[in-house]
Amino acid sequence: MISVEKALQIVLNSVQNFGTETSMEEIPFLQSVGRILKENIFADRDFPPFNRVSMDGIVIDYASFKNGQRSFKIEGIQAAGSEQITLYNAKNCIEVMTGAVLPNNANTVIRYEDVTIKDGIATIDIDTINDAQNIHTKGKDGKAGDVLIKQNTKISAAEIGVLATVGRAFVKVAKQPKVMIVSTGDELVGVDETPLSHQIRRSNVFNLVSLLERLNIPSETAHLTDDKPVLKEKIKAYLQEYDVLLFSGAVSKGKFDFLPQVFEELGVEKLFHKVAQRPGKPFWFGSAASLSMSEQGVYHNENHKNKKQTIVFGFPGNPISTFVNCLVYFYPWYYKSVGLEMEEETAILAKDISFKPNLTYFLQVKLCYKFGHLIANPVMGNGSGDLASLVHADAFIQLPSENKEFKSGEVFPVIRYR
Amino acid sequence: MISVEKALQIVLNSVQNFGTETSMEEIPFLQSVGRILKENIFADRDFPPFNRVSMDGIVIDYASFKNGQRSFKIEGIQAAGSEQITLYNAKNCIEVMTGAVLPNNANTVIRYEDVTIKDGIATIDIDTINDAQNIHTKGKDGKAGDVLIKQNTKISAAEIGVLATVGRAFVKVAKQPKVMIVSTGDELVGVDETPLSHQIRRSNVFNLVSLLERLNIPSETAHLTDDKPVLKEKIKAYLQEYDVLLFSGAVSKGKFDFLPQVFEELGVEKLFHKVAQRPGKPFWFGSAASLSMSEQGVYHNENHKNKKQTIVFGFPGNPISTFVNCLVYFYPWYYKSVGLEMEEETAILAKDISFKPNLTYFLQVKLCYKFGHLIANPVMGNGSGDLASLVHADAFIQLPSENKEFKSGEVFPVIRYR
Repeated sequence: MISVEKALQIVLNSVQNFGTETSMEEIPFLQSVGRILKENIFADRDFPPFNRVSMDGIVIDYASFKNGQRSFKIEGIQAAGSEQITLYNAKNCIEVMTGAVLPNNANTVIRYEDVTIKDGIATIDIDTINDAQNIHTKGKDGKAGDVLIKQNTKISAAEIGVLATVGRAFVKVAKQPKVMIVSTGDELVGVDETPLSHQIRRSNVFNLVSLLERLNIPSETAHLTDDKPVLKEKIKAYLQEYDVLLFSGAVSKGKFDFLPQVFEELGVEKLFHKVAQRPGKPFWFGSAASLSMSEQGVYHNENHKNKKQTIVFGFPGNPISTFVNCLVYFYPWYYKSVGLEMEEETAILAKDISFKPNLTYFLQVKLCYKFGHLIANPVMGNGSGDLASLVHADAFIQLPSENKEFKSGEVFPVIRYR
Repeated sequence: MISVEKALQIVLNSVQNFGTETSMEEIPFLQSVGRILKENIFADRDFPPFNRVSMDGIVIDYASFKNGQRSFKIEGIQAAGSEQITLYNAKNCIEVMTGAVLPNNANTVIRYEDVTIKDGIATIDIDTINDAQNIHTKGKDGKAGDVLIKQNTKISAAEIGVLATVGRAFVKVAKQPKVMIVSTGDELVGVDETPLSHQIRRSNVFNLVSLLERLNIPSETAHLTDDKPVLKEKIKAYLQEYDVLLFSGAVSKGKFDFLPQVFEELGVEKLFHKVAQRPGKPFWFGSAASLSMSEQGVYHNENHKNKKQTIVFGFPGNPISTFVNCLVYFYPWYYKSVGLEMEEETAILAKDISFKPNLTYFLQVKLCYKFGHLIANPVMGNGSGDLASLVHADAFIQLPSENKEFKSGEVFPVIRYR
């Protein structure tokens, strides 16, 4: 049994062919929120692209004000979206609108609030104005050719506006892996079925679908019966077609836990089985290089165009085990695959906790903020089968296996799921 | 000019007919992530629904172990998903799988790791076992009829599994408001166009589309020219059709800032114009009760079926102004409309900041975690026109107008946008 740290290292070493041309796609910019940018975005022009008026008001030649002049005849209007006009007489002014080009021969904007306009004459009501005030100077925020958004940025609403401004109607982002999520277990029936007394409804796969949706990864789901020949045939096909297979169940010591055996027989290399953690201990992880029928795989090896790597996450079947392992292993694997660097978040434990086994303990917590501190309040469920306890928490904190006693006030890594 | 606090209070008072039957819809559970639950979700059965085996191994009658017996003949196998079987001889055992029903007459599970099986006989290798161990007792996590998820919960991956378990293929959630986002300004051209030297591309509306997408609100967009009759005609139609109109631009003092006048002429009640804040000061906010052609409105008044309230957010046209005001006003308005209580998040300022004007200052910051503390590092842009500066930050902190000097270490409310 290996440690969580070692297991994570092996998972992260299984990220392959990341960042190659075949792992990108070009999509409409408005659909790119949450995706990982795979190119630098450059300024196509200076920002702003012209000396831009930043207040509604009048524009003058500052020299006239400095010479004591306070009243200015209005010569014209420079609207936003109009071609640049010219102030012909340095003793006159032009009305200007926010977003307009600064008129020729003018250099200082006085906002309407500080001006009185009567009979075509604008009189400045204040004594102090600054040369070149209320002008957003051409190129002040950036020069043509500057990198505005760096490659590997996770695109948010903030980036969308910049992409629009530089005219990037389409943008290159990391492809998403093609994922199949498989449940096993003959006790499971569908969501719209009524279970018999010894049955329950499928739920783990839907937890996984939603956790992947948080990463904007679409996925497919299937349910397989605990029948070895069926499992073998179906999984063989999935290995050809998908980049990632996520399983829930059938990886422990049960008589019908056929998956490890099936994986072996199908040539999936076992990288580890069992991790010193609670919940989620019987986690099986491996990878398969198989001949690919599909051209859609993210992990094409450029040198062997027909070869394709499929990563297999065999999560234990208890709901909390599946849930936490997806967050602890699949998420970082995905982030590294698409080139995203994630900063570690930490929280302060609100209550003493004792945990004796020599295992990393993923403790469910409810988070809250107090005075800029992130506080983690333990939520005590009834073990890894207690699905409903996830509703009362919003994260796990990771308590290291070396310690047995964890004190209120100590700080631990936090893994959020909302 | 009113304060941010007063403005927010007026915005929140404009939430209408929240929580009525007409403001709900029933959708497939897997599409409900991010939506607000509008019913309590009850357990349809006990959780677990039967005494559930929680380890792979053997099950015995504890009395036999207590009497000193260590070897047990295997009488059968109880698989997960099979009907309950019976242990006929109290001196025998049954192999049991995780997720299976506890067999009749048996009560204590010993995991395979602690047992040696040879020639159909299981011998327990350990000296201490507990009565009823490794059984997840029927009803331990919850009883039939218990509320598992409360109304007004924001649905996440955690809730999805619970919905599946109780067989809720469809679920009642708050309807989303029908939103139109309108840009104005003759300087604006489309994303796929090449602007002339005095023009720029539209970007604010796309920022808004993405900010609403974060709330799972679909929206439509339009661009209107700075022409009063056109504005009036179009906006009149929008008031009939939409629950919310978001505008960017044309609400300040410019000669072509027709919106306040158009709103007035169309009978939109002005609730305030201008807020003591930077950026985003010229914010216009109002509401209109108009005859509705549509049956889709969220805010139907039950007593006046044909009456419909449209809320109008007139954001100032500078990109940061539009962006911050959507977060500061539209977001809380939406949260209250759908019944979601939001906890205030706070962060610790990392650097001294001086801000003299008597305005609430929304300062762009980059957040990071240190020892469970949320640290806000100021990001200095070039004012409200500096769209690209949003890329370098991930939140705003709200600095109150009463103070001029803000010290490193002080704590302020934080408004995230990633």
